[in-house]
Amino acid sequence: MRFIEKLLKISQKNNSLLCVGLDTDLKKIPEFLLKEEDPVFTFNKKIVDSTSDLVCAYKPNIAFYESLGTDGLLSLKKTIDYIPDDIPVILDAKRGDIGNTARMYAKAVFEEFKADAVTVNPYLGEDSISPFLAYEDKCSFILCLTSNKSAGDFQLQIIDKRPLYELVAEKVSSWNQKKNCGLVVGATYPEQLKKIREIAYDLPILIPGVGAQKGDLEKTVKFGTDKKGNLAVINSSRGIIYASDEKDFATESRKKAKELRDDINKFRL
Amino acid sequence: MRFIEKLLKISQKNNSLLCVGLDTDLKKIPEFLLKEEDPVFTFNKKIVDSTSDLVCAYKPNIAFYESLGTDGLLSLKKTIDYIPDDIPVILDAKRGDIGNTARMYAKAVFEEFKADAVTVNPYLGEDSISPFLAYEDKCSFILCLTSNKSAGDFQLQIIDKRPLYELVAEKVSSWNQKKNCGLVVGATYPEQLKKIREIAYDLPILIPGVGAQKGDLEKTVKFGTDKKGNLAVINSSRGIIYASDEKDFATESRKKAKELRDDINKFRL
Repeated sequence: MRFIEKLLKISQKNNSLLCVGLDTDLKKIPEFLLKEEDPVFTFNKKIVDSTSDLVCAYKPNIAFYESLGTDGLLSLKKTIDYIPDDIPVILDAKRGDIGNTARMYAKAVFEEFKADAVTVNPYLGEDSISPFLAYEDKCSFILCLTSNKSAGDFQLQIIDKRPLYELVAEKVSSWNQKKNCGLVVGATYPEQLKKIREIAYDLPILIPGVGAQKGDLEKTVKFGTDKKGNLAVINSSRGIIYASDEKDFATESRKKAKELRDDINKFRL
Repeated sequence: MRFIEKLLKISQKNNSLLCVGLDTDLKKIPEFLLKEEDPVFTFNKKIVDSTSDLVCAYKPNIAFYESLGTDGLLSLKKTIDYIPDDIPVILDAKRGDIGNTARMYAKAVFEEFKADAVTVNPYLGEDSISPFLAYEDKCSFILCLTSNKSAGDFQLQIIDKRPLYELVAEKVSSWNQKKNCGLVVGATYPEQLKKIREIAYDLPILIPGVGAQKGDLEKTVKFGTDKKGNLAVINSSRGIIYASDEKDFATESRKKAKELRDDINKFRL
């Protein structure tokens, strides 16, 4: 099944555009879990168990796992294996390299880790993205406008009367012949999101930045969804998974996830 | 010791600006090595043993190791440990993420893998780079103009009368307060390299693309080095490490490495 079909199917089943970011940090998970053999996997398992009927995707950021070395990457692999098959896993890796090397990254992400989708960086251009797009049933979310303050350093610079991120949105739309491209746009830039959705009208858009980074939720939903109120994948990480650092952490995460899913749906078509 | 001092010291000792790229691919190493317990490490060890008096740095590209899963990353770690301490290791990872996550990548690269330097992607701007720059004795080589054909998609686009890559070179020069920034510029763009060296006159420049990608060596050396004929780190991967797929592979790699080091030196000040 193509990624986009898988995404629409679970969005409908769980009535959700919410993506939970599994940015699991040993310093932030409840302390009592540290005595477990694999605290990171144990934490993720509990979060998945308590939220899997509320989400349209999970998004582990590989940096958090890499920082723990090979043990961390094994925890990541176990986590991806554990997530129910009908929920897409977007591996947030922001990879980007020349063709020869990009093929190796694509192999790692899609074959080793078995993710359904990946985030990639556009700076090196089309031939750095095409090895990811060769996996037709997977999806590549290309960074367009990121949620951080310094996004302006380059992404907001003007080229031929429009900002670089719009050029990225245009190019990515033209690369979407196999319907396996997406974009990443931070919720911290709602007006720009509106413009990007006009350009990339049929692409899934991954939108981080509604939680800890305080993006505007109403505008995010209205401007980020397509004409049918779908294809926005709205991510929250810290705001959900670290809802409590006590024994009740999974129940509290569930509450936060349900709250955000329902808040999103209020603004949905 | 600061990275730049370490680089100048070994450049002088080995009379070399040559960096050998350890892009080790199980499909390309001599077949007889596949029966070894760790073929990737065994291959790298032999390459290092046969070239360590000829180079100013080694550059493993992490994608090749990631594509082999955690086994591959263990081989990478062993390789970095094995490389003599006076030779800097540049981990080619092209990482880039928002601050919170960039810190995790920096930790992975500098603390887990213990690399001396890393390549990073500029697309997310200054706050995505600064967590790497917090490691004062390490070096972050920021992608400026890459060697691939599609580099033009975004990097060559004009902003305020100069191309994006020049803006990157200017910004990176301004971020270099701790003298721990570098740039990556492909040898396939010699005229542009000249301009970048003018802007970033005191930064080390990592220059891939002289081997398999056929960049012009004379111009690369003349335009890539600083006023004293230093600070260019000229990388070749495939052209050196896959010189032969027979028992003599390490000796043949040494020949190729020596040849290229000497060719580079012909054009040096």
